[in-house]
Amino acid sequence: MKAYQELSREELLELQKELSAAYEDAKGKGLKLDMSRGKPSIAQLDMVMDIMDVFTSQSDMKTEAGVDVRNSGLMDGIPEAKKLMADIMGVSPENVIVCGNASLPIMYDSVSRCMTHGVLGGTPWCKLEKVKFLCPAPGYDRHFAITEHFGIEMITVPMTPEGPDMDIVEKLVAEDESIKGIWCVPKYANPTGVSYSDETVRRFAALKPAAKDFRIFWDNAYAIHHLYDDRQDEILEILSECEKAGNPDMVYEFCSTSKISFAGGGVAAVASSKANLDNIRKSMTIQTIGYDKINQLRHVRYYKNIDGMRAHMRKHADLIRPKFEAVLAVLNRELAGLGIGTWTNPNGGYFISFDAMEGCAKAIVAKCKEAGVVMTGAGATFPYGKDPKDSNIRIAPSFPTPEEMAQAADLFVLCVKLVSVEKLLAQ
Amino acid sequence: MKAYQELSREELLELQKELSAAYEDAKGKGLKLDMSRGKPSIAQLDMVMDIMDVFTSQSDMKTEAGVDVRNSGLMDGIPEAKKLMADIMGVSPENVIVCGNASLPIMYDSVSRCMTHGVLGGTPWCKLEKVKFLCPAPGYDRHFAITEHFGIEMITVPMTPEGPDMDIVEKLVAEDESIKGIWCVPKYANPTGVSYSDETVRRFAALKPAAKDFRIFWDNAYAIHHLYDDRQDEILEILSECEKAGNPDMVYEFCSTSKISFAGGGVAAVASSKANLDNIRKSMTIQTIGYDKINQLRHVRYYKNIDGMRAHMRKHADLIRPKFEAVLAVLNRELAGLGIGTWTNPNGGYFISFDAMEGCAKAIVAKCKEAGVVMTGAGATFPYGKDPKDSNIRIAPSFPTPEEMAQAADLFVLCVKLVSVEKLLAQ
Repeated sequence: MKAYQELSREELLELQKELSAAYEDAKGKGLKLDMSRGKPSIAQLDMVMDIMDVFTSQSDMKTEAGVDVRNSGLMDGIPEAKKLMADIMGVSPENVIVCGNASLPIMYDSVSRCMTHGVLGGTPWCKLEKVKFLCPAPGYDRHFAITEHFGIEMITVPMTPEGPDMDIVEKLVAEDESIKGIWCVPKYANPTGVSYSDETVRRFAALKPAAKDFRIFWDNAYAIHHLYDDRQDEILEILSECEKAGNPDMVYEFCSTSKISFAGGGVAAVASSKANLDNIRKSMTIQTIGYDKINQLRHVRYYKNIDGMRAHMRKHADLIRPKFEAVLAVLNRELAGLGIGTWTNPNGGYFISFDAMEGCAKAIVAKCKEAGVVMTGAGATFPYGKDPKDSNIRIAPSFPTPEEMAQAADLFVLCVKLVSVEKLLAQ
Repeated sequence: MKAYQELSREELLELQKELSAAYEDAKGKGLKLDMSRGKPSIAQLDMVMDIMDVFTSQSDMKTEAGVDVRNSGLMDGIPEAKKLMADIMGVSPENVIVCGNASLPIMYDSVSRCMTHGVLGGTPWCKLEKVKFLCPAPGYDRHFAITEHFGIEMITVPMTPEGPDMDIVEKLVAEDESIKGIWCVPKYANPTGVSYSDETVRRFAALKPAAKDFRIFWDNAYAIHHLYDDRQDEILEILSECEKAGNPDMVYEFCSTSKISFAGGGVAAVASSKANLDNIRKSMTIQTIGYDKINQLRHVRYYKNIDGMRAHMRKHADLIRPKFEAVLAVLNRELAGLGIGTWTNPNGGYFISFDAMEGCAKAIVAKCKEAGVVMTGAGATFPYGKDPKDSNIRIAPSFPTPEEMAQAADLFVLCVKLVSVEKLLAQ
């Protein structure tokens, strides 16, 4: 297999002809697949349906401590749900507040609260001339959307195989008081699949930010989302690392069951220091009479404990792994050695991250779309939707079936080849 | 029955002696009742338990249009839930966004969004020197808590039997551009039970605010919460009235099933003009992947339609009405003609509003508490928790049983008498 860069102009032209014909064929197949979001598949959702039998009209609706979950009260979550969510994150239940059906609103609220009320008595960010966030990229588009929505300036930080480039993070937060936060997906990161190394986590915990109200937004979305039994990442627990490093209040950690139970009806939580949680509770008493405790108890009765949840996630892995493998098989078979793309082979999470030749990502995604396969928009994994190299593409294999996934991957590699040839010819 | 004001000093002293003795007796009874919040009773919650049988592991989890409610998507609510919530408010489904488990977070979010992003492109309120809200009082303490939390100055507007004093409302909003909103509970108001007259609603719709971004926060919390079959209030529908009056965008209306199904696990909604809803949706796409659509569909399948819900609310009324009647019977028997208190006899809602002699409310509530009955804090029904006359007390009969309610009322009237006598003696 010769790298495309080593092909002569004639060979490239010949290849272009073949690939164009194949692409026209592919368009004729009338594919209609959506791989734009990390949506759980129907099979995954079906696997959780027993949760619907947890409560009947005859059920006892009380917590272990005897509180009726149908009524208002217990604003920050029922104790047994705190325990379950704490165990997902590896923290203590007293460091957890259990919220509503997904973690995105908690992250939005956290930023919004900092804007209107500041952090632990600090100046509300909306009163400051300038507020900036560090954004390791490629990263999660919805994180960047929140900061953009609030007019927060985003500074891209490169990702390494160990996590964000900590030399850059340390330098920037130490010298710029207007940098108030950083977005992190520390485990099976969206989209790179990278899990932060112990050194990275320790360097995060030991940051010396110029801004006293600097916070790490630690989105532990894939904490127990392993793909394999024998290849699993583990990361250091950030709250205790921060405490050890003398920065006990520096982190807001988020997690949810959106990709464990139901994307539309899960349970989400935030973990942080007592000072931060007390501050959050102060706003919560104004904001809510309490989240849906019935659903919290439903989840606890269904999963019972973290072991039950881990067992469940092994079944999830059995559903998702074949899809990852279907994509990886096609990528390996069709693109290895061609010099026109690199990709990740993660141990968990929901995504494969693909890096095309510079300047090709938008064109590849457009070509896929034209032939009926919708990918996440190129650039979406970068702040402001702008990938400076126009290279990164997020592949989300969770929703389609393995067969559909293989079809989509076939089309994808065809588009990668065609766009790469055209790019090389244009040079 | 002689009014206390007509009693001689000697008669008052004699009365004080009797009442003090009775109060000491009452303290000995070891009562322990909480009437502080409008919490649904256990019997009410039990009556809704059939909703738990709506879904089993075998259920079809699709909307009528075929959308799987277990997954993300349909951010602004499933169509059938829009219809149900719209029918509660008497508006069109296209004017409705269905949200999470209670309306308080929607109200909080609405104010928060105005603070950080302004209204329909206007200056964010957090960038303004001064933002004020009109607060008809006595009113709902949680409304006032939201505006206080955001540093919004609250101006008290007196309530009349027809609603807020509209002469004052019209004058203030017309002359002060910093007045950006008003809190309203238009039907069976908390705590007065007043329903706004047609003239009041029309005058609201025809307001000419100096601030283009003035909004009416119309909390229609008790829209179908009648206590009687033959004594029911109806109010004019505010959205269409505003449209007729040339103010189509002036209202955010809120409602929920917190006091229909479960306080901890209901469904809530906001209704407004298309322009306002589009603006809300713009923030929502950043804030959420969608609320809990499983619970939305659960409610629709259970109640089926507004008729099913109204039938259900008649059963609720049968549970709550005896508690109201128990209190009213005691008030009438013990206080009528004494000149030391007036009270409401509402056709619906959750509260009886009691006005003691000036300067007596705090002392009455404190005396009740000392003897084991917790009432809503005196003053809570006014902005900043300060009732200028120290006169209003909110009675929340929903949670206790009718027997407990009668006991609590006996204690309450005893405290009213005792405090009133002491007040008169001190004059």
